[in-house]
Amino acid sequence: MAGSTYGTIFRVTTWGESHGKGIGVVVDGCPAGLPLSEELIQPFLDRRKPGQSRFTTKRAESDSVAILSGVFEGKTTGTPISMVVFNQDQHSKDYSNIAELYRPGHADYGFDVKYGFRDYRGGGRSSGRETIGRVAAGAIAALLLEQLGVKVLAYSRSIGPVEMETFDEQEILNNKLYMPDAAAAERAAAYLEECMAHKDSSGGVVECIVKGMPAGVGEPVFDKLDARLGQAMFSIGAVKGVEIGDGFAAARAKGSENNDAFVMGEDGSIEKLTNHAGGILGGISDGSDIVIRAAFKPTPSIASPQSTVNRSGENVDLEIHGRHDPIIVPRAVVVVEAMTAITLVDELLMGMGSRLENVKNVWGN
Amino acid sequence: MAGSTYGTIFRVTTWGESHGKGIGVVVDGCPAGLPLSEELIQPFLDRRKPGQSRFTTKRAESDSVAILSGVFEGKTTGTPISMVVFNQDQHSKDYSNIAELYRPGHADYGFDVKYGFRDYRGGGRSSGRETIGRVAAGAIAALLLEQLGVKVLAYSRSIGPVEMETFDEQEILNNKLYMPDAAAAERAAAYLEECMAHKDSSGGVVECIVKGMPAGVGEPVFDKLDARLGQAMFSIGAVKGVEIGDGFAAARAKGSENNDAFVMGEDGSIEKLTNHAGGILGGISDGSDIVIRAAFKPTPSIASPQSTVNRSGENVDLEIHGRHDPIIVPRAVVVVEAMTAITLVDELLMGMGSRLENVKNVWGN
Amino acid sequence: MAGSTYGTIFRVTTWGESHGKGIGVVVDGCPAGLPLSEELIQPFLDRRKPGQSRFTTKRAESDSVAILSGVFEGKTTGTPISMVVFNQDQHSKDYSNIAELYRPGHADYGFDVKYGFRDYRGGGRSSGRETIGRVAAGAIAALLLEQLGVKVLAYSRSIGPVEMETFDEQEILNNKLYMPDAAAAERAAAYLEECMAHKDSSGGVVECIVKGMPAGVGEPVFDKLDARLGQAMFSIGAVKGVEIGDGFAAARAKGSENNDAFVMGEDGSIEKLTNHAGGILGGISDGSDIVIRAAFKPTPSIASPQSTVNRSGENVDLEIHGRHDPIIVPRAVVVVEAMTAITLVDELLMGMGSRLENVKNVWGN
Amino acid sequence: MAGSTYGTIFRVTTWGESHGKGIGVVVDGCPAGLPLSEELIQPFLDRRKPGQSRFTTKRAESDSVAILSGVFEGKTTGTPISMVVFNQDQHSKDYSNIAELYRPGHADYGFDVKYGFRDYRGGGRSSGRETIGRVAAGAIAALLLEQLGVKVLAYSRSIGPVEMETFDEQEILNNKLYMPDAAAAERAAAYLEECMAHKDSSGGVVECIVKGMPAGVGEPVFDKLDARLGQAMFSIGAVKGVEIGDGFAAARAKGSENNDAFVMGEDGSIEKLTNHAGGILGGISDGSDIVIRAAFKPTPSIASPQSTVNRSGENVDLEIHGRHDPIIVPRAVVVVEAMTAITLVDELLMGMGSRLENVKNVWGN
Repeated sequence: MAGSTYGTIFRVTTWGESHGKGIGVVVDGCPAGLPLSEELIQPFLDRRKPGQSRFTTKRAESDSVAILSGVFEGKTTGTPISMVVFNQDQHSKDYSNIAELYRPGHADYGFDVKYGFRDYRGGGRSSGRETIGRVAAGAIAALLLEQLGVKVLAYSRSIGPVEMETFDEQEILNNKLYMPDAAAAERAAAYLEECMAHKDSSGGVVECIVKGMPAGVGEPVFDKLDARLGQAMFSIGAVKGVEIGDGFAAARAKGSENNDAFVMGEDGSIEKLTNHAGGILGGISDGSDIVIRAAFKPTPSIASPQSTVNRSGENVDLEIHGRHDPIIVPRAVVVVEAMTAITLVDELLMGMGSRLENVKNVWGN
Repeated sequence: MAGSTYGTIFRVTTWGESHGKGIGVVVDGCPAGLPLSEELIQPFLDRRKPGQSRFTTKRAESDSVAILSGVFEGKTTGTPISMVVFNQDQHSKDYSNIAELYRPGHADYGFDVKYGFRDYRGGGRSSGRETIGRVAAGAIAALLLEQLGVKVLAYSRSIGPVEMETFDEQEILNNKLYMPDAAAAERAAAYLEECMAHKDSSGGVVECIVKGMPAGVGEPVFDKLDARLGQAMFSIGAVKGVEIGDGFAAARAKGSENNDAFVMGEDGSIEKLTNHAGGILGGISDGSDIVIRAAFKPTPSIASPQSTVNRSGENVDLEIHGRHDPIIVPRAVVVVEAMTAITLVDELLMGMGSRLENVKNVWGN
Repeated sequence: MAGSTYGTIFRVTTWGESHGKGIGVVVDGCPAGLPLSEELIQPFLDRRKPGQSRFTTKRAESDSVAILSGVFEGKTTGTPISMVVFNQDQHSKDYSNIAELYRPGHADYGFDVKYGFRDYRGGGRSSGRETIGRVAAGAIAALLLEQLGVKVLAYSRSIGPVEMETFDEQEILNNKLYMPDAAAAERAAAYLEECMAHKDSSGGVVECIVKGMPAGVGEPVFDKLDARLGQAMFSIGAVKGVEIGDGFAAARAKGSENNDAFVMGEDGSIEKLTNHAGGILGGISDGSDIVIRAAFKPTPSIASPQSTVNRSGENVDLEIHGRHDPIIVPRAVVVVEAMTAITLVDELLMGMGSRLENVKNVWGN
Repeated sequence: MAGSTYGTIFRVTTWGESHGKGIGVVVDGCPAGLPLSEELIQPFLDRRKPGQSRFTTKRAESDSVAILSGVFEGKTTGTPISMVVFNQDQHSKDYSNIAELYRPGHADYGFDVKYGFRDYRGGGRSSGRETIGRVAAGAIAALLLEQLGVKVLAYSRSIGPVEMETFDEQEILNNKLYMPDAAAAERAAAYLEECMAHKDSSGGVVECIVKGMPAGVGEPVFDKLDARLGQAMFSIGAVKGVEIGDGFAAARAKGSENNDAFVMGEDGSIEKLTNHAGGILGGISDGSDIVIRAAFKPTPSIASPQSTVNRSGENVDLEIHGRHDPIIVPRAVVVVEAMTAITLVDELLMGMGSRLENVKNVWGN
């Protein structure tokens, strides 16, 4: 099936495997007139690329993006924007020993059952490199949101058991773990060192805040803003849980605690005294900050010995070598941001005709 | 936008408002040849209908479903199946006092901003009655899954702070809270009584287990099985968090703890020693039980006084009267089951052509 | 598959069989604020209903539409609009003799091969009554277009060999064949009498003109305005050919003849001296009248003896009795209008965000 | 909008402009296990590439395709197949004089109105080069159909007023006009010489026959096989008319002439004595040859003087120089074939679950 396309009006189609020729994406439905260049997109990819710290794979990839279409004289033309990052440092030999068996926690088994065989080199299509296309598309979405005064900001909320305790936006880009709390980042680094020493890996939580989101965006019933964000988050490999606003805590709360009272703001706008809802009510944005959290499982590729089965139906032992991140979270921060931005843009474009008066304004005489 | 349609091949379109003429659904793309009748669907709706206990609204609705098309001589024909439940007991006057203000925790404000006005009677389209269409469609999906040996089973995992401690499948239908633990159900009932006494409401968690799911179902990348289940869950009003398998606990785990080892089963099939993954790896079912949890916020309609604003931009006080459930969870159990079943059927149908050999088997000479 | 849904933003889902309980449609994505009532929709259905003249089936159906959702206080709310026409005059016994055989020119054989069996009563889902849902949805689309100053007008261009020679818009509703040429309508009626006398039927061509269409509507590449209109026309049963503008005549023309020169209009707008293109260039409306033609085959149900096969694989003779129109065209006129209107509205809504400036106007601060 | 994606299960997304870096396509949803290589695709592109004869533009492009993803060890993996043809011989200066005006018969005006500006170099996205992506995707579809015993064959039926009179399949690839009638091809060449001598261009008709198509493919109502083929054909630039089977001739026929009698074949299969329907009844394939015709307008780029308007709203004169085909038809033959093949594959995959028994065969235990 066409599972590699996402969105209704702002449509993102990704392609590519870890050890193929490259990874790419086609963004269709981007409004015309948005200033765009490779220089504007590259910083997003740089936040995802390998080799940023000792906590990321040593695979050497510059992940330089090339725009192949859809931009003319520095602006989007409204036609599909094709972008590609060519692979450079594939060590496919590293994977020959795993071609015949199913790594625990990986997509190997599912792919073989579904398709009859798989491109086993570096995880093929299920590699984390698949997210390059999402990040490039997300960069465009973020630039578009910027034009509307909307800002999407993600960061590592927790690494294993280490959770942030303070929030300093400036700090996020200051540490390699993208945590908004310098002290927590240090403790998290120590925790990761310990994991690596034991040939183990760690999970963590990414949080994403959207500021400046206009109220009234989202489509009841099945395309609720939170429903589409839920799909977006769970579509990122390794995500096992998603929360909007108070999330699971809301399930333990009472109505009198969880309801956010509306109140008139000083500027005459409608505000909420609290934001347990995380900016979405009834599937529609309410003008408050949108708050999302995504729980990432630990990297399944660990160097410790594991037991598994092979394609011939035999129990076998496995040790995974190669170049693997001990944690997915820091590099996933920008992926969460990208998927959020893409979803918001798509819902913004879908909702333009919600009122007859808007339709008349754009198309009427 | 067309947010009221869900699915690619098995397509569900719902319509209807709380105080309109009725609630309905059109299910298109159901395979031909499935035995179907109103008698087979009604039991699913009965689990959702009001008036089952003192914890549900007193609105008197039989919620009797009528099939209007798509069934001939007791079997589905492959054409769209239209089903309707006519509303009977609308007390629209109950809502006249809230027409001009925005209830905290409700969709009122979002609808007004988005559409310019709203059908305020009983929440209109954002009412819980909207889920009737989902449940009727989910019944068809569940009957179809039954033909494939797949069983979807949901229940209340927790009510406010009261969590189940034992699991007895037979117990689920024995108590009005649909909990698989009789003792926990009793404690939960006491907790709800207390909430009601304080004019308050409670949240809770629904868990859903899928047994017999074949491996190899789900579409990487954006239509991963967990991504679509995520959308499905968050599309249910009041859901604020979703987990697959270990969910947020996986974020605190290490790889060595979270990886599920594969092992050859006695019957020669591939099994997993544990199921932290909740039956989905890389977006594709792995043959283990699928495990999903959805966190529901407390019913926002509470009788305690609240402060809010009205459409004229004034701060006002509000007391909500009328007939409201002190908790959404028990009646949402079958909705979770329905959305899960619908999603599974759609992904099963989408994936039929994943391998050339299957295409040849169906269409070749 | 979900072949009963059409459109991306303005989404139309139809259901129902000729001899089932009724025929209906759900229209999702209609902008909020459009004045709507059953009285505004009924006139469109009246142009399609049977029994208007001696050239239409004698089946007695009032085809009265009921709106079940999506309208509040006389205006659309933005939520799905469900409409139904209940069947009244089913004579299912008339069809028992054809249950076991395949009528030439009908969908019988295809349905049986595809689905394994079929609802044979009155053609089931492949009956012309299926178009009731389209016409009801098309009425909403036409009312929406009216708000934008766009008018869709269809009529019978030819009946068998009889083609219109003059065009008088007022005449269209004056004769039962919906021809804009009174003299041609008379000759056509005589031709149809002759067909009926010989137990035969006739084909014909419906032409549709759209006036007031803004330029700039339509989505290159696959969703070109003409591509979507082409799908819309061919989705109407019995259509075997479609033309935009000069159609097949353009294939015989030279570029110097076929190109439409642009010229500045007196009011400063850009006009074309001719309109061979039929109002669409490169898949986008050019501001001229849109011109579409659809060729309908003759009604396949004829009373003359025919030879065919039955489900047991035997050659058999067949005489079709029952109540059949000797021509589809007059009743199809409003169906062509409906499908055109639906398509235009969907493309208008899809294209609202083509330019960044429009997105800013609707959503920016 | 996302108009550059086509298909539901077999999903084709094209990108690229005439004078950008290249033209490409992503094919998602292709079943795994299909043998595929650049060598298998290139012959399709060679039939479309420029410079094949004196009747095609002199632009020198090898149009060599590269596969960037989705193929491993010579077979499709089920993941998206990305293909690209890099542009080589762009003479962008040729177009500077037309940047500010609207060429008659071209998409220039529509693009400017819709998007606010356009990539005017070589027609940008509306160039015929856009079809490269379709042809590459169509090659995959054709190879897949070959595995099912289905063959798609297109050819030039008429060039201007010159129509084929005989049909010799071998002859199609023998002449540069892809006509199955050598004598007609000669007359057509003479006609084109005359057009070129007068700085003029010609239209023509492409016909496409599908042999070996299984019965039972196509989705009533809006996704009828003919509806989707109609969209596919009209999505090709310059197509102004489409016919299935007898097409417009059916509108002039009587039912007794147009109905195709069913008859038992010698091998026990159900056949039709005639094929006025062109292989599709009720939107579903009937097992006979599918017959489609597409009418192409003359190339709008002609060297004769024309009058038009510029972006400043002034009437101006225009002479188009550069490298243009005097006729689109011969190079469009393979594009028609491609769009037909893509559509058939998508409908074949969509219809795999039409019957419960097929679903059980693929997924049941």
